[in-house]
Amino acid sequence: MQKDSFMTSEFYFIDRIRKQFSFAGSELGIGDDCAVIPFSDNESYLITSDALVEDIHFALDITSFEDLGWKALAVNLSDIAAMGGIPKYFFISIAVPKTISHDSLTRFYDGIKDISSEFNVTLLGGDTTASKKHLFVSITAVGIGQNDKILLRSGTKAGDKIYVTGTLGDSAAGLALLRDQSARQRNDHPMIRKHLHPIPRLHEMTYLNTHYKIHSAIDLSDGLSGDLGHILSENGVGAHILWKNLPLSVELLSWEDKHQVEEFVLHGGEDYEVLFTSPEEINSEDLLREHKIILNKIGEITDSKGLQLTINGSQVLISPSSFDHFKDDM
Amino acid sequence: MQKDSFMTSEFYFIDRIRKQFSFAGSELGIGDDCAVIPFSDNESYLITSDALVEDIHFALDITSFEDLGWKALAVNLSDIAAMGGIPKYFFISIAVPKTISHDSLTRFYDGIKDISSEFNVTLLGGDTTASKKHLFVSITAVGIGQNDKILLRSGTKAGDKIYVTGTLGDSAAGLALLRDQSARQRNDHPMIRKHLHPIPRLHEMTYLNTHYKIHSAIDLSDGLSGDLGHILSENGVGAHILWKNLPLSVELLSWEDKHQVEEFVLHGGEDYEVLFTSPEEINSEDLLREHKIILNKIGEITDSKGLQLTINGSQVLISPSSFDHFKDDM
Repeated sequence: MQKDSFMTSEFYFIDRIRKQFSFAGSELGIGDDCAVIPFSDNESYLITSDALVEDIHFALDITSFEDLGWKALAVNLSDIAAMGGIPKYFFISIAVPKTISHDSLTRFYDGIKDISSEFNVTLLGGDTTASKKHLFVSITAVGIGQNDKILLRSGTKAGDKIYVTGTLGDSAAGLALLRDQSARQRNDHPMIRKHLHPIPRLHEMTYLNTHYKIHSAIDLSDGLSGDLGHILSENGVGAHILWKNLPLSVELLSWEDKHQVEEFVLHGGEDYEVLFTSPEEINSEDLLREHKIILNKIGEITDSKGLQLTINGSQVLISPSSFDHFKDDM
Repeated sequence: MQKDSFMTSEFYFIDRIRKQFSFAGSELGIGDDCAVIPFSDNESYLITSDALVEDIHFALDITSFEDLGWKALAVNLSDIAAMGGIPKYFFISIAVPKTISHDSLTRFYDGIKDISSEFNVTLLGGDTTASKKHLFVSITAVGIGQNDKILLRSGTKAGDKIYVTGTLGDSAAGLALLRDQSARQRNDHPMIRKHLHPIPRLHEMTYLNTHYKIHSAIDLSDGLSGDLGHILSENGVGAHILWKNLPLSVELLSWEDKHQVEEFVLHGGEDYEVLFTSPEEINSEDLLREHKIILNKIGEITDSKGLQLTINGSQVLISPSSFDHFKDDM
C-alpha cells in the first residue's frame, strides 16, 4: 500500500474523464459514492460500480474464494450505505482464467450468496467470461434512497461534527499481517477478517440516517485522510481531528510499531467504515448500549482549509493522501 | 472463434449460478438480455452488464482504442435494443495495465463519447483501477422500457415469423480478415468495421417495436444458431429457416470459401443484429424504402423441436452452437 499526493494519478484521471464528458453533465455523476437516478417524487435509485482485480486488489494466496466473493459485493454495498440507501439488486461481471476451477468459482459464488442473503440483495444478471491470466470481478449494485435522505459528499459546513462508524486502520494492519509470511496461519485474526471480509455499514447507517441529521457522508475505502479530504475539497472547508478520539481496535492498540499505527489509521485504505458530518451531538454510549452501533466523534469541520490533527498535545497538518491503485506496486 | 455443443461451459456455468441463487429468484433475472426493474405502472428500468477482456474479446494489435471504446458500450446498448428499450445511463469499470498510456485511454474514452453522444446515453460513474497485465472493461447500461412493450426471449409460439435486422456473418468474416496478416491494412473494410464498430439496432427496434407486435427477441451476440437456440429452448419450440432468405452482405456473398460463409452466417458471433419473432407479415421493402431499416424474414417458429435449415433444396438439422468464450483459444 503506497501513498501518493492528492489529485494525481487515479484522481487526476477521473478529473480528465469528468471534463471529457462534461457535455453529458450530471450533477450527481462521477464523484459521489453512487449515481442518483430519481424514479418517483420520494425515491431514487442509487447505483455504484466497483471492480476487484487480481494482484491489484487481492492475491489468491492470501484470500479464500468465499471471502473474495463476499468482499466484491461488500465494497459496493458500502457505497450504498454511505449514501444512506438500502441495497436491492446487483449485477456481476467476472472474467475467469482457466487456472481457476469450477469448484473455486462455486466457492466464490458461495461468498456472494452469503452476503447477498445477509443484506437481502438479489442477483439480477451479469456476464461470465474467460480471462487470459488474472481474475477480474466488477459488480454493479442498485439501491434505493429516500430523496430527502440521500447523503452526498457535499453539504457540510464549519461547525459540523465528524463521526466515523467502527474502528480505523484495522484493514491496512490486517493486510500487513497477511503479507507477513510468519503470520499467514492466523486467518481468523480480527484485523485480517476486517481486511478480507468487511461488513458494509448498512444497518448502522440506516439507523443513523433515520434518527439524526447528516450533512455529508463518504465510505472509507481510500483511507481517512484521503476520503475526509474528498469531503473537504468538495465543500471548500477544513477539519480538525483529535488523535485521542480516533477509534482504534484493541488489536491495533497492541501493535508495537506506533508509527505504523499512525499510518494505518490516518492513511490506510479499505476499512469500509462510513465517515459523516452532522450538526448534532450524537450520544455514542447510548448508541452502543441500545443499538450495538460503534460510532465516534473524531473532530469538527472548520472554516480554515486543510486537515489539522492534534496528536500528543501538538497540532500537525495532514496531507490528504490515499491508497491509489495506479501507484500500487504493479 | 470456436464452436461448442450447446449447454456446456459458459451456458452450463450460468445454469449452475442460476440454481445456486434460485433462493433469490427473479423471473426476469439471469437469462434475458437485460434485467427488468419496474419503477412505475408504465415503465421499467432495463439493466445489462457486459465485459470485454483483452486477448479474449479483443486484441490491441487489431483494434484501435476509439473502436474499443465504441464497442464496449455498443454491446450493452445492443442488449437494450433487443429488449425494446431506450438506453439512458451507463457505468464503466475499467482495469488498465500500465503499458497503456493516458493518451490511449483518452482515445478509448473518445470512442465511448462518440457512441454515447450518438445514442444520447449519459455516463454516470464507475471505477478506474490498475490491472497487472490485461485491459478489462465492464459496462453496465441502464435503459427504460414501456412495461407493455418489453421484449423477452420467451413469448413466441409456432407459426410466428422469424426476422433479423441487418446482415449476418459479417462480424465473424471481419474478424477472419483481421486475423489474416495480409489483410491488416484494410481497416475500413465494411466487414471489419462491423466487427470492430458494431451499430446497436436501437433506432430500428424502437420503430419496429412501436409499429408491430413482437413476441420474443434476442440480440445476436453468440451467433444465429446459438441465439435462436436460446429462444427455442426457452419456449420449447423449434424453427425452420431458409438459407436463401438469410441476409448476406455483398462482401460476404463474394467470399470465396462457401463453407466458411455458412459457418460465419449460421454460427458466427458478434453481429449485434436483433432477431425477433412476430405473428405479423412485415413488408421489408416498405421498411427499407421509407425508414432505411434492413429487415428480413428468415423462417418460422415450428411445433417440432430443433432448428431445421433448408439449403440447396435439402433440409438439415442444425445443432445450436455458439461462440463460447470459455472454449476460446485461451
